Amino acid sequence: MTAFDSLWASILDVGQHKSTRGYRRFAWGDADLTLREWFCGEASRRSMDVEEDRNGNLWAWWLPEGWVGDPTGAFVTGSHLDSVPDGGAYDGPLGVVSAFAAVDILRERGVEPSIPIAITAFSDEEGARFGVACVGSQLTTGALSPDRARSLRDANGVTLAEAMTKAGRMPEHIGADNTLVDRVGVYVELHVEQGRALDLVDKPIAVASSIWPHGRWEFTFTGEANHAGATRLVDRRDPMLAFASSVHSARSAATTHDAVATFGKVRVLPNGANAIPSEIKAWLDARAADEETLKSLVAVIEAEARAHALADLVGLEVFAESVTPIVEFPSQPREKLQRALAHLGDIPVLPTAAGHDAGILSAKVPTAMLFVRNPTGVSHSPDEYAEEADCNIGAHALAEVMADWVTEKHH
Amino acid sequence: MTAFDSLWASILDVGQHKSTRGYRRFAWGDADLTLREWFCGEASRRSMDVEEDRNGNLWAWWLPEGWVGDPTGAFVTGSHLDSVPDGGAYDGPLGVVSAFAAVDILRERGVEPSIPIAITAFSDEEGARFGVACVGSQLTTGALSPDRARSLRDANGVTLAEAMTKAGRMPEHIGADNTLVDRVGVYVELHVEQGRALDLVDKPIAVASSIWPHGRWEFTFTGEANHAGATRLVDRRDPMLAFASSVHSARSAATTHDAVATFGKVRVLPNGANAIPSEIKAWLDARAADEETLKSLVAVIEAEARAHALADLVGLEVFAESVTPIVEFPSQPREKLQRALAHLGDIPVLPTAAGHDAGILSAKVPTAMLFVRNPTGVSHSPDEYAEEADCNIGAHALAEVMADWVTEKHH
Repeated sequence: MTAFDSLWASILDVGQHKSTRGYRRFAWGDADLTLREWFCGEASRRSMDVEEDRNGNLWAWWLPEGWVGDPTGAFVTGSHLDSVPDGGAYDGPLGVVSAFAAVDILRERGVEPSIPIAITAFSDEEGARFGVACVGSQLTTGALSPDRARSLRDANGVTLAEAMTKAGRMPEHIGADNTLVDRVGVYVELHVEQGRALDLVDKPIAVASSIWPHGRWEFTFTGEANHAGATRLVDRRDPMLAFASSVHSARSAATTHDAVATFGKVRVLPNGANAIPSEIKAWLDARAADEETLKSLVAVIEAEARAHALADLVGLEVFAESVTPIVEFPSQPREKLQRALAHLGDIPVLPTAAGHDAGILSAKVPTAMLFVRNPTGVSHSPDEYAEEADCNIGAHALAEVMADWVTEKHH
Repeated sequence: MTAFDSLWASILDVGQHKSTRGYRRFAWGDADLTLREWFCGEASRRSMDVEEDRNGNLWAWWLPEGWVGDPTGAFVTGSHLDSVPDGGAYDGPLGVVSAFAAVDILRERGVEPSIPIAITAFSDEEGARFGVACVGSQLTTGALSPDRARSLRDANGVTLAEAMTKAGRMPEHIGADNTLVDRVGVYVELHVEQGRALDLVDKPIAVASSIWPHGRWEFTFTGEANHAGATRLVDRRDPMLAFASSVHSARSAATTHDAVATFGKVRVLPNGANAIPSEIKAWLDARAADEETLKSLVAVIEAEARAHALADLVGLEVFAESVTPIVEFPSQPREKLQRALAHLGDIPVLPTAAGHDAGILSAKVPTAMLFVRNPTGVSHSPDEYAEEADCNIGAHALAEVMADWVTEKHH
């Protein structure tokens, strides 16, 4: 089990903020570039050739002995290395580290693959810097237009194109890469669970059934900046009130829809203690078990927000920044995973409300996911945690699945 | 009337932001330094010696012909040149520009003062950068301790001491300056009105009766960062909900207290669209007609916020960042102002809910204020506005008051 532990320890200090202990690994920033170097180093140590596709996704290849020509039907596994602001250590990196550990386990056992293997680290999964999630996998599969991607801006006004150029990449070449996608036989992503379902049933790992449909909507409440002291209450058009009411509308609509809805990101203008705000931008994250429920949930929240805005003489614009349909993982790779893990007993099959690159890839290739227990359910937080023993079970499970897949013919 | 108009036009583009048209003139920043140079140039053009006191306040002196030694019993008038974020053109600069225009009017009329005159521009009145208002006047009058002032930090972590040092000043020398305060016989501040009272009674100018007691309280709601998708509603400790409830508590408590209360500045951590916030800092600005009412207002808001936090399993800390007692302007200078302006008919006498350097100085010297009509009442906004005709009436009224004061003996 040493392989996993030392690999894991080797990135624990990259991008960790001293005061919050949270990770700040944002696309194309210093921490992200350091982790890309780490990835290349680990691949090279295993004699795996690394290819960075034109969208910044990393692919480390292990080809069968004597393989000639481009890889096809590959068993691909990995995740992402970037984080949300002050995120945890596990969301993303656990899948990449477990993939390298699984390769080590196969080699220790002397497994000779007859099918190509690749380890991937997809670029900018969280969308923390440029506002859109899964940029790398969306570009490669053609789900995001290169023009829109290039013009995405971070909080300092830097475009993705500028950030990539600064990092020595060529944003003029980003876009769909069907040749690369055609090499993938299956994509299996191992990920820390982001809820407490496995803890509640006392199991270390699960396979995914589906990803809830989800999206981000930008709500812009427009009022009138004014003096916080000298402006009578009746003369105010304060957008903070309609925003505050909308926070509660989102929560109660989520409750009635058996779904989740969150306002977690807010930008206030001018944001002065003695000024009534002129504008509040707030991002709604909403997710539900099916698309009809999600549509109804967001419609209710938007309608209530409009009523609050109208009552307060405040303007409101709502813009759907990204909406991702439901992903139902196909039964074929999932059942094969379950069979390969039969020695662990019943493997729970769980839906997840969190988006993943596996969800994006599922539009083009067979995909499956493995979840590792999160005893507190906390994620996107410095307190995100998984037990070392569970991480080792996860890496070994991934190795079992990999060994099973690459030692018989699937195509 | 040309004097006022061209003076006014000469600073209209300093620190104005292109896209918002709002002013961003923050203490010791580039726009502030440019305005300081402008002040020195205008003083020099009028052969007035400029002294920058050790707290960064500017004083331009016009001494009576043949005056020997330090000035005493001076007629001092002015205001400030800094702004809130995306503030208007009038709040502050109108008083400084009108002061120069008044000097010009006296000189055109051949008035020979027998009492020293000074024009002032107090440093960092708005507190937009370092969080505390009236830093310059508070330091000079001894209301703010030099140690606390030096360690105030802006949003980028820069201390006031560092900002002053960078601007070539010596923060080690800041603090109370009794010698300077002792030179002031009266301080008269002309300011754009920040409400609509003058518009409602159709008068161009008013004199101030009092400044409402007011303050800023920092509310810190502490929850638990978590994944906005995968965390069940029942497992959340989301501080956004308690904050949103507190926004409404503040508004309704303000209504019942016939006062004002505003949450205009908010800082969310980690502020990611797919993360439940770990912490929300929100600044309450509250003001009321008397101190007892203000105390009760803030107590009610804090008690309700604590109840909201408790219900949502969220922590709450409340810190009084600054609390300014009521200022009742003395009748003596006010009545003298009213007599000098008798030719304009009845001059309304108004309280104001906005803080001013005049309020700080009133603890040490006789003070009075003149307000110029604001037809929309909008302030702390790019839309802040006063009619040119009213500004001219204001400058001439200030000149009348100045001429009246400096041509007879008051001391």
